Amino acid sequence: MAYELFYWPTIQGRGEFVRLALEEAGADYVDVARGPGGMQIMLALLADPALTEPPFAPPFLRSNGLIVAQTANILDYLGTRHQLAPREESLRRWTLQLQLTVTDLLVEVHDTHHPIAASLYYEDQKPEAARRSADFVRNRLPKFLEYFERVLQTNPAGPHHLVGDQLSYVDLSLFQVLEGTRYAFPRALEQLAGSCPRLTALRDAVAARPRIAAYLASPRRLPFNQQGLFRRYPELDPA
Amino acid sequence: MAYELFYWPTIQGRGEFVRLALEEAGADYVDVARGPGGMQIMLALLADPALTEPPFAPPFLRSNGLIVAQTANILDYLGTRHQLAPREESLRRWTLQLQLTVTDLLVEVHDTHHPIAASLYYEDQKPEAARRSADFVRNRLPKFLEYFERVLQTNPAGPHHLVGDQLSYVDLSLFQVLEGTRYAFPRALEQLAGSCPRLTALRDAVAARPRIAAYLASPRRLPFNQQGLFRRYPELDPA
Repeated sequence: MAYELFYWPTIQGRGEFVRLALEEAGADYVDVARGPGGMQIMLALLADPALTEPPFAPPFLRSNGLIVAQTANILDYLGTRHQLAPREESLRRWTLQLQLTVTDLLVEVHDTHHPIAASLYYEDQKPEAARRSADFVRNRLPKFLEYFERVLQTNPAGPHHLVGDQLSYVDLSLFQVLEGTRYAFPRALEQLAGSCPRLTALRDAVAARPRIAAYLASPRRLPFNQQGLFRRYPELDPA
Repeated sequence: MAYELFYWPTIQGRGEFVRLALEEAGADYVDVARGPGGMQIMLALLADPALTEPPFAPPFLRSNGLIVAQTANILDYLGTRHQLAPREESLRRWTLQLQLTVTDLLVEVHDTHHPIAASLYYEDQKPEAARRSADFVRNRLPKFLEYFERVLQTNPAGPHHLVGDQLSYVDLSLFQVLEGTRYAFPRALEQLAGSCPRLTALRDAVAARPRIAAYLASPRRLPFNQQGLFRRYPELDPA
């Protein structure tokens, strides 16, 4: 039975991290909210009082009656089922730990354009967004990228993957982080890329994987846009 | 061998969620950074280039040479070892999912007083903090508390625990969330408490557990203060 992925239909957002894993696994899945009536199905499910394990928010995955939510939790679930995480327990946990650090980064990326409230428009919080983005670009983005570069560098199995010597879901997630950062903060990333050669190589290697390349070229891959997690406001990425 | 917990020594912060689990488990542990020279030990470990699985930030736990970081990941690790999480795989994952929603809430709590940058003082971002807190109190805190109340209400094993019919680490975490919210946003919580009777009962039940009660009365329990995650700025919690 196909996986059912539930996520906002017009953005990459956090759902994209799950989509990349499903695509790399060659898994059979339906992106429910992008189908006919899909948004209504998703919202009805979120509000269903009969649900004993309700998700707090999308993305969530339904698989044989089981509902799994929280991006990192979904990836850990998929990772063990599709050889996208190490089998060995302590390495599986290390992979999850890295993914949770990606989660932390994504919250900060979102808050660069919405530092006051997700319920307000960007236009209602532009000065605050400019201040927050300046700190993000100066302090936080370098700290995260240097951290992941360090993890690649010290991986005992070599610098080609974050964990062990095989692809895991967190490699796919780092690809997405770099793609999103290149969209939202191209100038900042250009400044930082020189000190992150292993991350850049990882991004290129992921993009060249046959299933990922096919996905990226397909209509299933939504473009980055101004409603997603990564947004391009040139004023937040000054020269 | 005792667990070694590494966390900032003067605040409850995210480390407190781990402390509560270790205390309830009756586990032997050392709160390293609170001991002599502990901060230096922690900072040296974070920067150690020989570390192949470096944490991004505290808290982290060392156990028999293994280092585990990210609060929810640490709790999942401890939960399976100390009967603080269900044995059954899908329930263990549901517990982790709930804890990751607690993680999301904690980021938002932090950002009520630091919406612009953690590297700046509160005093440097007071107007922004007031705007962000107003949205938090009006929209976000109710959404999170109503969600956890709903989870208690729909738990097939009854409303006394979030998962199944036994205490898990996420019950301890919700206790801490409510205690912290009562410290930081007493007026807002008073308004909301009436619609969260099961959460209130859970907080009381956790506080009355013998090991938790002994811990809370001990010098090991740091008081809430103005450096932690939950801070009391009366202007952020208006009548």
